[in-house]
Amino acid sequence: MLNPQSDLILVAGGAGFIGSHLCRALLDQGHSVVCLDNLQTGRAQNLEGLSSDPRFEFIEADVVAPLPASVTERTARFRRIYNLACAASPPQYQADPEHTMLTNVVGSHHLLRLAEASSARFLLSSTSEVYGDPEVHPQREGYRGWVNCTGPRACYDEGKRAAEAMAFDYARLGRAEVRVARIFNTYGPQMHPDDGRVVSNLICQALSGREITIYGDGSQTRSFCYVSDMVDGLMRLMESETVGLDPVNLGNPVELTVSELLAEVLDLTGSRAPIVHMPLPIDDPRRRRPDIDRATALLGWQPRVGLRDGLERTCAWFARELAETTPQRVPA
Amino acid sequence: MLNPQSDLILVAGGAGFIGSHLCRALLDQGHSVVCLDNLQTGRAQNLEGLSSDPRFEFIEADVVAPLPASVTERTARFRRIYNLACAASPPQYQADPEHTMLTNVVGSHHLLRLAEASSARFLLSSTSEVYGDPEVHPQREGYRGWVNCTGPRACYDEGKRAAEAMAFDYARLGRAEVRVARIFNTYGPQMHPDDGRVVSNLICQALSGREITIYGDGSQTRSFCYVSDMVDGLMRLMESETVGLDPVNLGNPVELTVSELLAEVLDLTGSRAPIVHMPLPIDDPRRRRPDIDRATALLGWQPRVGLRDGLERTCAWFARELAETTPQRVPA
Repeated sequence: MLNPQSDLILVAGGAGFIGSHLCRALLDQGHSVVCLDNLQTGRAQNLEGLSSDPRFEFIEADVVAPLPASVTERTARFRRIYNLACAASPPQYQADPEHTMLTNVVGSHHLLRLAEASSARFLLSSTSEVYGDPEVHPQREGYRGWVNCTGPRACYDEGKRAAEAMAFDYARLGRAEVRVARIFNTYGPQMHPDDGRVVSNLICQALSGREITIYGDGSQTRSFCYVSDMVDGLMRLMESETVGLDPVNLGNPVELTVSELLAEVLDLTGSRAPIVHMPLPIDDPRRRRPDIDRATALLGWQPRVGLRDGLERTCAWFARELAETTPQRVPA
Repeated sequence: MLNPQSDLILVAGGAGFIGSHLCRALLDQGHSVVCLDNLQTGRAQNLEGLSSDPRFEFIEADVVAPLPASVTERTARFRRIYNLACAASPPQYQADPEHTMLTNVVGSHHLLRLAEASSARFLLSSTSEVYGDPEVHPQREGYRGWVNCTGPRACYDEGKRAAEAMAFDYARLGRAEVRVARIFNTYGPQMHPDDGRVVSNLICQALSGREITIYGDGSQTRSFCYVSDMVDGLMRLMESETVGLDPVNLGNPVELTVSELLAEVLDLTGSRAPIVHMPLPIDDPRRRRPDIDRATALLGWQPRVGLRDGLERTCAWFARELAETTPQRVPA
């Protein structure tokens, strides 16, 4: 058990979508949380509900740079280090691919060194993108993936694969206790409205009455996990003692096409916005669904929030967001 | 054309096996060469024939660290940057997996930044290991590979894949002209006697009369390229104007089993050393053969030194090496 008076949990990327929910959940369990974020894609407003908590501390810093003294001077107090630091949607991580690669490799390196020095347990948030455009379905952790290491998604996909490699080397050498979560598509409140991901795109476009963009013919599939389920999985994985030298898929195995998702969103929002089709991006995966047998067996975990329920909560949050940031339109 | 009075070629890893041959060939063409090496696996004796050349300069430095002032103060003079810096045999690159990963990612990053600042062309020595244990045969450049990103070879394989990703991002963004060579097994004089690779292992064991170690049953295949052919390929690739955003395989497509290689070595050395079989290492590829159609089409390149010829030259070199370093045995 951690002692909230003396022990600290570091959440790198804690101002991001999943990171901020994780910080909230850790605080709710009574922990003291240090959130590190460069606010590149994480947002200060995600921290609004956290900053008033005396056990919460925010440090603006980039994990690519050496860790700030405000972290290193308390090295001995860290017990858990969650690394969620990296832009995670293609338009965002492709905007500066060099920084994306360094965030994953050099950032993970800095945090692994901290974990070693503090004897903290380290959790890497990896990604279903390590499977690339998968040839097998669903994806088990033993599948080695189909990633184009020379393409425009490689800065993220290969950066995460490299970070996994380094994390497991630390574990093999006994330098740190390591957990690796391969996170599949996740959605919920506090998603970035402009991050280019399909759930936020569709909901924001439907709510705003703008054109709704579908890439390809909409037959590509995704599996969407509600953020509270994902945070629960990450925390269980971090606290699990039985994982060994293996990554663990976390995601919702309920698979649906992008067209089916759109139908749900249109139904929930009552939107009649026009739909336009655009070409599929390069190396976009056609299908993606996690095999979560390992997570269920090792962590007793499975998603509990259904798609309809999760989308309702997400639409409600986006509706409030857009109302606050968009001037009211006067009907013609 | 480069001006040997003012223009410089940087060879990172230039004290290594292939690197030292490359330095020699560049000097023979009249170029001025700056060799950067940390002497981790590269060897000062590889530079013995080079150091007397007034156009050759050796700087002991690790590419993981910021480049030394002796390089950066001449940034504007570099025209070509060859990055061959990384331990390349499994026992060597697994000895410090963290350093192997950083050499590939951070080292390539430092050299790509130098290439951008100097408008130099950058060549990355990547590897057939990016294909992992391949499911298709022979390997074309478009094959995405079968790499275990969590295993003990991943520090090298994923490090190279990440370095390729970063190099092509520099090229896509117009930050540097980039060439990526995927180097298959290479052999010849100046191989490290103890690097654990099959050609040097077999020759040294045969010459010394010790037991000869075969991993597995010897049916796994490799394709061996003589070092002068490899250096020719690297230099042609660097000077090619038609490569685009694609990696290029360099290697000898003549495939043989390890047992067939052993038979050649025993025949050439007249050795009757006993043969012992050991288990195959984890993730050891079963087959490996380059498809070199792209190199032939773009560079007019193909290997010219046959296996028998190359092995003869290599055995002769190892025989001299061992005679110099091993005390003469008195027959019983």
